[in-house]
Amino acid sequence: MSGPVQPTPGLVVGVDIGGSNLRLALADSQGTVLGKWCTSTKSTSSPEMVIVQIEQGVEHLLRRSSVPHSDLMSIAAGVPGVTNSDTGIVIATSYLGGWRNVPFQKILESALNVPAAVENDVRMAAIGEHWKGAARGVNDFVFLAIGTGIAAGIFANGKLVRGAKCTAGEVGYMYVPGTTEEPAKPGAPGSLESMIGGGGIRDQWRNNGETRRSPSATEIFELAATGDLAAKNALDRTAQILAYTVFNIALVLDSALFVLGGGVGMSTALRDATQRVLERYSEPVLPTIVASHLGEDAQLMGAIRLAMTTADARGRIGSGKLIS
Amino acid sequence: MSGPVQPTPGLVVGVDIGGSNLRLALADSQGTVLGKWCTSTKSTSSPEMVIVQIEQGVEHLLRRSSVPHSDLMSIAAGVPGVTNSDTGIVIATSYLGGWRNVPFQKILESALNVPAAVENDVRMAAIGEHWKGAARGVNDFVFLAIGTGIAAGIFANGKLVRGAKCTAGEVGYMYVPGTTEEPAKPGAPGSLESMIGGGGIRDQWRNNGETRRSPSATEIFELAATGDLAAKNALDRTAQILAYTVFNIALVLDSALFVLGGGVGMSTALRDATQRVLERYSEPVLPTIVASHLGEDAQLMGAIRLAMTTADARGRIGSGKLIS
Repeated sequence: MSGPVQPTPGLVVGVDIGGSNLRLALADSQGTVLGKWCTSTKSTSSPEMVIVQIEQGVEHLLRRSSVPHSDLMSIAAGVPGVTNSDTGIVIATSYLGGWRNVPFQKILESALNVPAAVENDVRMAAIGEHWKGAARGVNDFVFLAIGTGIAAGIFANGKLVRGAKCTAGEVGYMYVPGTTEEPAKPGAPGSLESMIGGGGIRDQWRNNGETRRSPSATEIFELAATGDLAAKNALDRTAQILAYTVFNIALVLDSALFVLGGGVGMSTALRDATQRVLERYSEPVLPTIVASHLGEDAQLMGAIRLAMTTADARGRIGSGKLIS
Repeated sequence: MSGPVQPTPGLVVGVDIGGSNLRLALADSQGTVLGKWCTSTKSTSSPEMVIVQIEQGVEHLLRRSSVPHSDLMSIAAGVPGVTNSDTGIVIATSYLGGWRNVPFQKILESALNVPAAVENDVRMAAIGEHWKGAARGVNDFVFLAIGTGIAAGIFANGKLVRGAKCTAGEVGYMYVPGTTEEPAKPGAPGSLESMIGGGGIRDQWRNNGETRRSPSATEIFELAATGDLAAKNALDRTAQILAYTVFNIALVLDSALFVLGGGVGMSTALRDATQRVLERYSEPVLPTIVASHLGEDAQLMGAIRLAMTTADARGRIGSGKLIS
């Protein structure tokens, strides 16, 4: 949070829309954050409700920085679902009541009267890490978000990979040794998520005989260091399966770097255990894995960056240097 | 093969360097093949020996088409190994006696006195399929070569994916349910290759109790249709493992299309059986697999295409339309 600043021509807004929270940041044309704002999305469903929340946040941030709306050059929003960033359409979400083919970019532009861009949330986090985080200057890397679900934001040749139907990176459905071989059911977690997503890790721990407590996945990984055998088994098994996943993705893309994010992915114990497994699987690639530098801000920073390039591409900021 | 033609300004040569054969094609500036030439590489090792063979072939083709060497605008060669197409260096091959860090593009340019380009052979085949084959006009697709080894040539966003160290697509080392979990040893086949490469498929068949005959992998797949139980088991298992492989790659890239090439990959029985498995694994992607349209010419056609874009990029052919 910051107090009033000198009015800066060319402000942008980045939005991180999640299933629990909606977060906004106001930044200047260089991407320096001038202020942040947050609200709950737990009872939010329709796109219109999200737009009202965004308008409230933008107004609040502009007022707090004492700048007029006319200084706002662009806005970009990360959305938790399949998103076509070219057309600006959110194809499907399982959060926010379940959107289908929502022209969210157009709705944002109408509401705020500035150029807007939308992108899938995990890809937005990858943009953030590429711009200001662990993957700065790295042209071939993977941001791997591991929380309740698992998905990847992929850069190849310095550009985001979105795929033919905008679902590139849905690696939570991958099959590796140790996952189920059953086909996934529509709407249900994928093979990998159900094993090493947050819920899957808790299931592993409970299946090892633990019934007394209900720790989070990260807490289970910390218990492993204290000698808790069920926790150690869950950590080892998760690291082995995550290592296969990272290795398989690295074979496809020859990525220099894997950046782990999300509640489970940020665990140092998991990162260390997974890297140890990978060192045994070093032929023909040996991927490096690091924790996200931006943490829960990765998506918000990506949104600021996308807003900057959107303003630039549409001539609202005169500087060509913003597009990397 | 064709007889003498009208001299066409701007001829190019494509080269397909393999562990068994070296193939050349002479084409006009539109990519129409004017003649082909082939020789054995079974006793070829050093880059210099390959260059001598290429020079012989080029001279033969030019003479046969009655065109002077000065009409030759460029040459491109596909190499069976890790290749950096930006620097023109062949980093490593396991064929041809084993090359290490050979500046093959420069050697080609010195020998033939025209601009040259080099590329990994599987990626070259992908260029061919993208230009004239099964993936024409498809911006996100995977060419999957399955023979003795397994590797992929990948297009994402309409461009080849090469990765941080030029090893993108080495999917023969992938781990899926049904492969070994042992780490691969340097120089040895990968987990996937040793199971569903040509030799692996023959091993599966023999392990099913067959010791009498020594058919090829494709012949085993044909035996499956005649009621041979060991052959049917080998086909089913290969299709299941190939389906996991295709599915996993599709999750990463959201590729619209998989083009199967190589001696094993061209099998119709394998394609059909794999597509049937994939139809059960349809969430969240349902990749389409087709056989290569160009077959064993895929790499040669890719080399012609790369030679055309190389001539174009270096101003030897005046038309911008050659670069897609």
